[in-house]
Amino acid sequence: MTQKFRMGLIGTGRIGRVHAMSINALDNATLEWIADPFIAGAEATAAEFGGKVTTDPAEVFASGEVDAVIIASPTPTHVALIEAAIDAGIPALCEKPIDLDIARVDALRAKAAASPVPIVLGFNRRFDPHFDEVKRRVDSGEIGSIEQLAITSRDPAEPPAAYVAVSGGIFRDMTIHDFDIARFFIPEIVEVTARGTNTFSRDIEAAGDYDGVAVILRGSKGETITILNSRHSSFGYDQRIEVFGSKGMLQAGNIAPTSVRSFNAESVEGLAPYQNFFLERYADAYRLEIAEFLRGVAGEPFRSPSFDDGRAALILADAATESAKSGATVAVELA
Amino acid sequence: MTQKFRMGLIGTGRIGRVHAMSINALDNATLEWIADPFIAGAEATAAEFGGKVTTDPAEVFASGEVDAVIIASPTPTHVALIEAAIDAGIPALCEKPIDLDIARVDALRAKAAASPVPIVLGFNRRFDPHFDEVKRRVDSGEIGSIEQLAITSRDPAEPPAAYVAVSGGIFRDMTIHDFDIARFFIPEIVEVTARGTNTFSRDIEAAGDYDGVAVILRGSKGETITILNSRHSSFGYDQRIEVFGSKGMLQAGNIAPTSVRSFNAESVEGLAPYQNFFLERYADAYRLEIAEFLRGVAGEPFRSPSFDDGRAALILADAATESAKSGATVAVELA
Amino acid sequence: MTQKFRMGLIGTGRIGRVHAMSINALDNATLEWIADPFIAGAEATAAEFGGKVTTDPAEVFASGEVDAVIIASPTPTHVALIEAAIDAGIPALCEKPIDLDIARVDALRAKAAASPVPIVLGFNRRFDPHFDEVKRRVDSGEIGSIEQLAITSRDPAEPPAAYVAVSGGIFRDMTIHDFDIARFFIPEIVEVTARGTNTFSRDIEAAGDYDGVAVILRGSKGETITILNSRHSSFGYDQRIEVFGSKGMLQAGNIAPTSVRSFNAESVEGLAPYQNFFLERYADAYRLEIAEFLRGVAGEPFRSPSFDDGRAALILADAATESAKSGATVAVELA
Amino acid sequence: MTQKFRMGLIGTGRIGRVHAMSINALDNATLEWIADPFIAGAEATAAEFGGKVTTDPAEVFASGEVDAVIIASPTPTHVALIEAAIDAGIPALCEKPIDLDIARVDALRAKAAASPVPIVLGFNRRFDPHFDEVKRRVDSGEIGSIEQLAITSRDPAEPPAAYVAVSGGIFRDMTIHDFDIARFFIPEIVEVTARGTNTFSRDIEAAGDYDGVAVILRGSKGETITILNSRHSSFGYDQRIEVFGSKGMLQAGNIAPTSVRSFNAESVEGLAPYQNFFLERYADAYRLEIAEFLRGVAGEPFRSPSFDDGRAALILADAATESAKSGATVAVELA
Repeated sequence: MTQKFRMGLIGTGRIGRVHAMSINALDNATLEWIADPFIAGAEATAAEFGGKVTTDPAEVFASGEVDAVIIASPTPTHVALIEAAIDAGIPALCEKPIDLDIARVDALRAKAAASPVPIVLGFNRRFDPHFDEVKRRVDSGEIGSIEQLAITSRDPAEPPAAYVAVSGGIFRDMTIHDFDIARFFIPEIVEVTARGTNTFSRDIEAAGDYDGVAVILRGSKGETITILNSRHSSFGYDQRIEVFGSKGMLQAGNIAPTSVRSFNAESVEGLAPYQNFFLERYADAYRLEIAEFLRGVAGEPFRSPSFDDGRAALILADAATESAKSGATVAVELA
Repeated sequence: MTQKFRMGLIGTGRIGRVHAMSINALDNATLEWIADPFIAGAEATAAEFGGKVTTDPAEVFASGEVDAVIIASPTPTHVALIEAAIDAGIPALCEKPIDLDIARVDALRAKAAASPVPIVLGFNRRFDPHFDEVKRRVDSGEIGSIEQLAITSRDPAEPPAAYVAVSGGIFRDMTIHDFDIARFFIPEIVEVTARGTNTFSRDIEAAGDYDGVAVILRGSKGETITILNSRHSSFGYDQRIEVFGSKGMLQAGNIAPTSVRSFNAESVEGLAPYQNFFLERYADAYRLEIAEFLRGVAGEPFRSPSFDDGRAALILADAATESAKSGATVAVELA
Repeated sequence: MTQKFRMGLIGTGRIGRVHAMSINALDNATLEWIADPFIAGAEATAAEFGGKVTTDPAEVFASGEVDAVIIASPTPTHVALIEAAIDAGIPALCEKPIDLDIARVDALRAKAAASPVPIVLGFNRRFDPHFDEVKRRVDSGEIGSIEQLAITSRDPAEPPAAYVAVSGGIFRDMTIHDFDIARFFIPEIVEVTARGTNTFSRDIEAAGDYDGVAVILRGSKGETITILNSRHSSFGYDQRIEVFGSKGMLQAGNIAPTSVRSFNAESVEGLAPYQNFFLERYADAYRLEIAEFLRGVAGEPFRSPSFDDGRAALILADAATESAKSGATVAVELA
Repeated sequence: MTQKFRMGLIGTGRIGRVHAMSINALDNATLEWIADPFIAGAEATAAEFGGKVTTDPAEVFASGEVDAVIIASPTPTHVALIEAAIDAGIPALCEKPIDLDIARVDALRAKAAASPVPIVLGFNRRFDPHFDEVKRRVDSGEIGSIEQLAITSRDPAEPPAAYVAVSGGIFRDMTIHDFDIARFFIPEIVEVTARGTNTFSRDIEAAGDYDGVAVILRGSKGETITILNSRHSSFGYDQRIEVFGSKGMLQAGNIAPTSVRSFNAESVEGLAPYQNFFLERYADAYRLEIAEFLRGVAGEPFRSPSFDDGRAALILADAATESAKSGATVAVELA
């Protein structure tokens, strides 16, 4: 292994480009190979950040020139690419979700568990410095034992109809991040109750999906987690957590572009609207996510979300989908 | 009717004394009669705020000396006292809940509806200047149509075991206030989903009750309401609402005793803990509640919560109790 | 002395009416006599809050029916009325300033000092619960020794030209409150440096006065105090203090009408503008000021600002006026 | 000129290393030459960020291999190095102050003005995104005309005695940044009034310097600027500005490490202490400062602070030093 990790990047859509930027910003990584069937995307990324290009991910795995890969291609390709990474013995960071079908995830699980090749999941929010600081302080015992966790997560604007159609539904596409943040604090979830609504988007309703959801999870020690999602927000990307413990509470809030507060005859103490979307809000998190992955690849104990974390989030998403339809609480078994 | 409303007060427990203080603080009301079977309570209240005392509420109704009564006696007495008020033709403000048994409430409903005597319910939080300001601005259209409402309500410390035993359970005793606040913004609720937990109090668990709950309500237009309750809070009384609309969001937060913020080597911008409990937090609301009741008694259109508002909150509490037990969403019909 | 203090009120202008309201709100005081040469003012006040009326303050002092007086008449009458109070043996709370002429104040000083009759000054801000809490915590040692004190004080709108003409200038009329707050924290001031400006009001400039000032005071232990004043403020009454000590800092800020914060596409976390002027902002302080005065009258040690506090503030105002003209720092001797 | 600007860095002390980091972080710059008589410093910097090393700045200017230089050597060397840059025709960004002696600055002024070679000053705070956003909004007319500007600037801890001895005094070393920020908003300053104190540091007092200062500046349109400085702060680096205009006010505040707020029985809403010192607080500003310099070098109109801005700040520092000694306001002429 060289001093600088040679990275392979598979997929150069929106999230693929984020990872290319993060690799570029890291001191100990270089972008070596880029694969995308849409070769113009690979070429544009290479022009900006360097690397050889190919339409075929297999070429990346076979090259002998990458120390780790990032799988940022469309969801239906994830399972096969994770398998290819395992077979090639190359550590991989795979974007969420592993797959929309838990059966395919379970089919891969034994192979992933049996292999020494590290497979980690792209739940970037765990690396957000604000959420991570809450975690660090909770772990220090500052607020006693966790009793309640309230997660608010609202996107600035609804996604395109084409995206909604293949997203697997809001629970598997959007809430899945919140399920993982729930498990960041309370890994053992035993029960899912979910409701979905259609309040503003006729497109989303037409696609059979919800534009907002509320979820209640129960942890194995009786902890309560609530998740409130909306597919739009007039005031920008809304990303907050509140951890309520027996001895105190910690909140991590939204991030304004600057500290400037305004005072006038209409309003006082107002800030400019929050950072508009995940690329800005979680820029640090995306970079730290890869840095942590590479620490693991270098032999440090892995702190990155695991394959099983990816599976657990999908199980919760499936249970929520079922609960929202049936109106009944659904017990889950994540182990 | 005299210029100053002559008030009768039935019950001189904690909440009864709050009402005595509010009457004393109002310019247009005097405390004329006080009834409590525990006569020492009535006498102590009379010594402080004036008024004649009796052990028998019937004496108050028969006195011909009261223009309005406040019913602040134990819950099981409410139905009979409301009936007595109707029969005596004396407007009454009755503390929540009307009764723990919806059947008894329904039995009284026709009589209350048929009578011209105003019966209003003591849901004081509607009169909190902070929540009321949110309502005023929502009604003005400032945030478009309501899509989500998140209510957080945590008491500073668990009540005595004796109180828990007769409270009717957390949904009927504590969450009932939040059900009413939910209906302050979204009157038509069609569905209740609730979960309860036991995380810290063995006493409450032993009584067969929960020490924390999470509730999801659905409004008739698809609005989502979440309620998060806890029977304790290390940092004081926690009372917040967040109304999320299509064009904006409004939050009403906790109230610190002063505006003083502290900066030192451990922490910056910290405030002293919040006002400790409802007597401080809702002091204005209790006074405004009676002021509004008296405006109605004086002939203005009633803005106070009605008998049917009290019934609706109880129906929601019953549905939540059932949902928490069964794990199933419960449809409700409030009309 | 009766259980309820019988109060005399001299002057029924804006501040006189504030005191009448405060007396009315106190449990242990009644408004017994009201004097104003403009008898209609006295009568209107009596109609609202009770009390006998006269055009002649001497009648109040001679009545034998008042336990304490509040002097809220125009500044030029203060010295004679304080003398009358001393002669009559009636404790007095006199509005600031004692007089615009330090020579007249000094002439009265010996008499006031020699008399056992308590004379206190109406520096209401010392009783503001927010500023008082800062003082309490500073005295507790929480922030170590005071090194810097920054006072920001801006009125919402400039006063009428007729008022400016007789005000004695901004330092004696407006900044005088800030001089007293400075001395609340750092009683021994040894040096005054002041600058005045005319940035927005042609009327104030025409009257030979400033519409904004900046002042630097030095305490006897080297403490620095800054005062920033403006005669207008687009966003409401601006009243803040910041006490910076060797081990920490305490700030007391402005008070919004409610806790409601607004979030939309233009701005987030905004509050409605601050309480508009001193009647709202310092309502508690005015009431507590009289309560404290009456505790002193009842024999408790006086915590109220003294005659010498009133004199000290005037000396500082005179020094500031001189400094602003000369451009030179002025040494002061307050003892 | 190559696509990437080849940078020369003169001086590798604390601030020199900051600039090396910024160059490294910029896409369009490389560190080509590093000069420091203390060659080990140059070598350490080169080892981390690249570049050739020399003990002699003349070698950098003569190399023909640098497109721009950054002068980060000790203050007494600045004048000669600026001259060398002009002679070599190489644009230079020079750290503040130009010199501690205004006579030497004035002697250089004509040469700098006559030369086409750009010389800009390292007043990094103008590039702080928070302060810059205030400036942008002030320029947009949002708050009307500026009437008052309050600058608070406190270092976390006093500098070493050796540093104090050669710093030129607090006004020329620390307040000079605030003088420049004052001129960022109000370029034409006509008058300086300053007071200095010694409240906590015997070392600073022994060196004949102040450990805290308060300054009042007057702008040519009557604007008032206050500056409050301290050489220590228990709660971290304190950097705030408040711009008060005829129609509104804008504040830029301190930056906490994360958005995490804590709630417990002692305190609520507290943040962890502010970013500790200028390297963290102004990291963005240092990077943007060089980026802007290079835009100017590339032919865009220069927005960077000019030689004359550096001279103006020094004139204000000299005037403040004089005012603090004499106790008299000092008129200044910056043109």
